[in-house]
Amino acid sequence: MVLMYSNEIEKALEAESIKVWDTVRITKSGEAYEGILMPRTEAGDADILVIKQKDGYNIGISFKGAAISKVSSLETMPQGRGATASAQAKAKAPAAPGHGAPKVALLYTGGTIGNKVDYKTGGVYALTKPEELLNEVPELGGIAEIDAKKLFSIASEDLSESEWVAIADAAAKALNGGAKGVVVTIGTDTMHYASAALSFMLQGLNAPVVLTGAQRSSDRGSSDGFLNLICSAYLASRSDIAEVGICMHDTSSDQRCALIRGTKARKMHTSRRDAFRAVNSAPIAFADARGNLTYNGQYKRASPGGGGAVKAVTGLASKVALVKVYPSSDPGIIGYYRERGYTGMIIEGTGLGHVPNFTSEKSLSWLPAITEAIDCGMVVGMTSQCLYGRVNPNVYRTLRMLSAAGVVYCEDMLPEVAYVKLKWLLGNHGPEEARKQLPRNLAGEITERIEYSEFPE
Amino acid sequence: MVLMYSNEIEKALEAESIKVWDTVRITKSGEAYEGILMPRTEAGDADILVIKQKDGYNIGISFKGAAISKVSSLETMPQGRGATASAQAKAKAPAAPGHGAPKVALLYTGGTIGNKVDYKTGGVYALTKPEELLNEVPELGGIAEIDAKKLFSIASEDLSESEWVAIADAAAKALNGGAKGVVVTIGTDTMHYASAALSFMLQGLNAPVVLTGAQRSSDRGSSDGFLNLICSAYLASRSDIAEVGICMHDTSSDQRCALIRGTKARKMHTSRRDAFRAVNSAPIAFADARGNLTYNGQYKRASPGGGGAVKAVTGLASKVALVKVYPSSDPGIIGYYRERGYTGMIIEGTGLGHVPNFTSEKSLSWLPAITEAIDCGMVVGMTSQCLYGRVNPNVYRTLRMLSAAGVVYCEDMLPEVAYVKLKWLLGNHGPEEARKQLPRNLAGEITERIEYSEFPE
Repeated sequence: MVLMYSNEIEKALEAESIKVWDTVRITKSGEAYEGILMPRTEAGDADILVIKQKDGYNIGISFKGAAISKVSSLETMPQGRGATASAQAKAKAPAAPGHGAPKVALLYTGGTIGNKVDYKTGGVYALTKPEELLNEVPELGGIAEIDAKKLFSIASEDLSESEWVAIADAAAKALNGGAKGVVVTIGTDTMHYASAALSFMLQGLNAPVVLTGAQRSSDRGSSDGFLNLICSAYLASRSDIAEVGICMHDTSSDQRCALIRGTKARKMHTSRRDAFRAVNSAPIAFADARGNLTYNGQYKRASPGGGGAVKAVTGLASKVALVKVYPSSDPGIIGYYRERGYTGMIIEGTGLGHVPNFTSEKSLSWLPAITEAIDCGMVVGMTSQCLYGRVNPNVYRTLRMLSAAGVVYCEDMLPEVAYVKLKWLLGNHGPEEARKQLPRNLAGEITERIEYSEFPE
Repeated sequence: MVLMYSNEIEKALEAESIKVWDTVRITKSGEAYEGILMPRTEAGDADILVIKQKDGYNIGISFKGAAISKVSSLETMPQGRGATASAQAKAKAPAAPGHGAPKVALLYTGGTIGNKVDYKTGGVYALTKPEELLNEVPELGGIAEIDAKKLFSIASEDLSESEWVAIADAAAKALNGGAKGVVVTIGTDTMHYASAALSFMLQGLNAPVVLTGAQRSSDRGSSDGFLNLICSAYLASRSDIAEVGICMHDTSSDQRCALIRGTKARKMHTSRRDAFRAVNSAPIAFADARGNLTYNGQYKRASPGGGGAVKAVTGLASKVALVKVYPSSDPGIIGYYRERGYTGMIIEGTGLGHVPNFTSEKSLSWLPAITEAIDCGMVVGMTSQCLYGRVNPNVYRTLRMLSAAGVVYCEDMLPEVAYVKLKWLLGNHGPEEARKQLPRNLAGEITERIEYSEFPE
C-alpha cells in the first residue's frame, strides 16, 4: 500500500505531473535537492517529502516553503543513468538493516547519557558498559549496523586534552575502517570544547562525526538521550555532511534534533534539553525520530567518490590559557601564566574586544602586561564575553592600540573555540604560523557574515 | 478634538459604559492598574490605553490581552476623593514641562552615548560635555526637569569599583535632594556589572535608577542613544519602580525599550541595539518614545508616601576574583590569588556547577585547591558559564563534594552579578556573614522559579 502525502503535497505533485519514483528537484531556502521521489512510508510524516539522492541516501524535506519540479519520469529516464536506475531498483526494496545497512561507529566516553540514579544516595552515577545503553535504544539497530566501543567513562567536567586526542584517533580509525559515520556519546558540559577540538583535529574528513549526550539521565521520564541518539544515528548513517557536529534537542519538545557545527555550538542552559545553541550561526541540519533529515544551511558535503584517509592531527599545546577580563580584574595573572611557560592566551574581552586600559587605579591596566607577553613570544587572541556578535579592532582608538601591540582579533569566534583552536595551532605549528592561522577560517569557526536572525529575539 | 482609541478599545469602553475621565481598572497578565482613563493624544497609539494613576503619573497599557472595567464615573465620583478629582483637573491641562514637572538627575559618566566619530582617524572619541548630549535630545526637556551632571568620562572597559561608588553616592544625593528618579548614562560593555553594583549599594531605594547608553554613536544614522535616553527619562520620571534597571532597545527596531532589572541583565551581543537581555528573568517594564509605560512583571514599587533617605552602602572588597574553569584549566591560579590576599572568588563552573575533579592529569584537579582556599577563610561561590539556568549541588556526587567543602552555590545568579555581590558583601561584612548572604536574594538577583519562556527558543 502506498500512503498518500498531505493534500498540499499531492496537489503540487498533480500540478507538475509528478509520480512517485520520478526524479524531482526541490528548492527551499535557496538550496536545491535532487533525487528520486520516494513513497511515503508508514512511519513517514505526510508533510515531509522524502527523496533518495544520487549517493543512495534518503533525505526528508518539509514541504513548507518548498517548490518541486520534475527532472525526469521513471518511464522516460534517459539511457546511461544506470546508477540512478539501480538506486531506484534498490529503493523499492529498502535494504534490511543489519544486512548492507551503513556501518556507524559509536564511541562511548561517559556523561549523563550513560547515567543512572543511585537509589541509595539519590545521586547519579555512571554506567560502565555501553551495551546497557544500546539495549535501551533498540531502534538503533534498525537504523544502522552499530559498532559500539567504550573509550572510557569520564564526566564532561573531567575531560581534558588527552581524551580529545583519544576520541579523534578512534574516530579516524573507524572511518578509515569503513564506517559511514561516527557517533560520540559524551558529557554535555564541555561537549562544545570537544566538538571544536575534533573539528580542527580530523583532517580530510569526508563523513559526519556527531557528538551527542543527554541533559537528563535515561531513567527519568523526561530523558532526552533516546531521541538524541536516534537522530545522531540517522545523521551519521544517512547524511552527506562531512563535518563534526553536535546533535541535541532543537526545542524543549521531542519533535526533532538540531545538528550544530562543532565550532559554533555552546551550551547555554544548565538543564534544558535544548541547551545547545548555534552562536552567530544556524544549525546545519535537523533530524527527527523517523529519519527525516532537513538541511538548513551551508555545510561541507562528503565527496561522492569518497575522500582519502582521514588523518587525526592531534597536537595540542598544554600551556594555553583562557582569561576573562572584568571591572577591577587583575592583569597580574598574565605574569602567572608567563612564569609557567604559557605560549598562548585567549582573552574574553568586553564588547568589541576591550580590556581595561585607562583605569583610575593604574595597576589594573591590562595593556602593558599584554604587550610584554606578546613581546616575549606569547600568542594572544581576542574574543568577546558577549558571545554573540564579532570583535572588531577598527572602531575605537584603544582597540587599535591592542591590535597594534599584536593582539589577534578572532572575528566572531566563541571564546571556548578560540581557546581550543589556539591549543591546536600551537600544538602543531610554531607561534608565527599560529598567529597567522588564528583569525582565518579553518573549520567553520568564523562566519563571514552573521545573519540577523541568528541572535534570538 | 478628542481622538478615538482603536475600534477594539472603543467597543470595550462602550460595552462597559466607560467614558474618558472615568476611573477604570485594567487587568492584564495578573496585574491590576487603576486610574483615570485619559483621552488619546495626537501622539498616542490607538491600541494603547493611557491612564493617570493616583500618584499623578500616566502609564500606557497595550490593550492586547487586557480587560477593563469601570470603578467610578466622573459624574458620580464620591466625595472625599479630592486627590483624584484634583488629578483629573490637572489631567485636562497637562503640566507644562519645566514647571512642576518631575525632576530627574542625569548622571553622565562616559561611554558611546557621548561619542563622536573622529573624522581624521575614522576612530571614535568621547565628548567631554554632557550639555552636548542634552542639546541633541531636546525632547528630554519636555519629559522632565533634567538636572545634568558630569561625574567623569570613562569608557566602560576602564570603569572599576571606585567609579561605581561615585555613581552610587551621586544617585543617593540626587534622590535625597528631591529628584523623582535618576538616569545614568554609561558605557554599555560593563553596564551590567555597574547596575548590579548599584542594586546592592543603594539601600532604601524608593525611586527608579535607570542606566542607559548607546551601542552606536550619535552621529550614526542607526544610533540607538536617542530612544534609549527618552525612554529612560520617562521611566525615571513617571514609573513607580523602586529598583535599579538597565533601559536599552527591546528589539532591533526603534519600537520600544525594555527595562531589565539591574541584577538580571547581561550584554549578549557586541553590536546589536538589543544587545541587553534579561537572563533567567523577564524585563520589568517597557517604554516607548511617547511615554507609554507597560509593566511586565513583578517589581519593587515605590512607597506612595515616599521612603526614608536613600543610603549608599558602598563598601567593596578589592580582592575578589571571577574565575572560569575549562578543560585543562590550571587550578594553580587559586594559589596566585591566595598569595595576594584575596578573600573571595566566584567560579564560573560548567553545567550545574562543576569543576574538573577527577582528571586523568592529577595536577588539573580543582577540588584540592578550592578546599584549601576555603579552609584558609576564602569565600568561594559557584555559578554556571552556561549563563541561563541554575546551579544545583544536589544532582551529582561530585557536586555534593564541592558543597561539602564549603562552596556556596549561587542559584540562578549570573557569574558577573555574583562577582559584584561578593565584592559588596565582603566590603561591608565579615566572611561568615558574606557566606550566609551570598545565596540569599537581596536585590532580585535570585529568581525563585524561572519561567520556561525566559530562555529564548
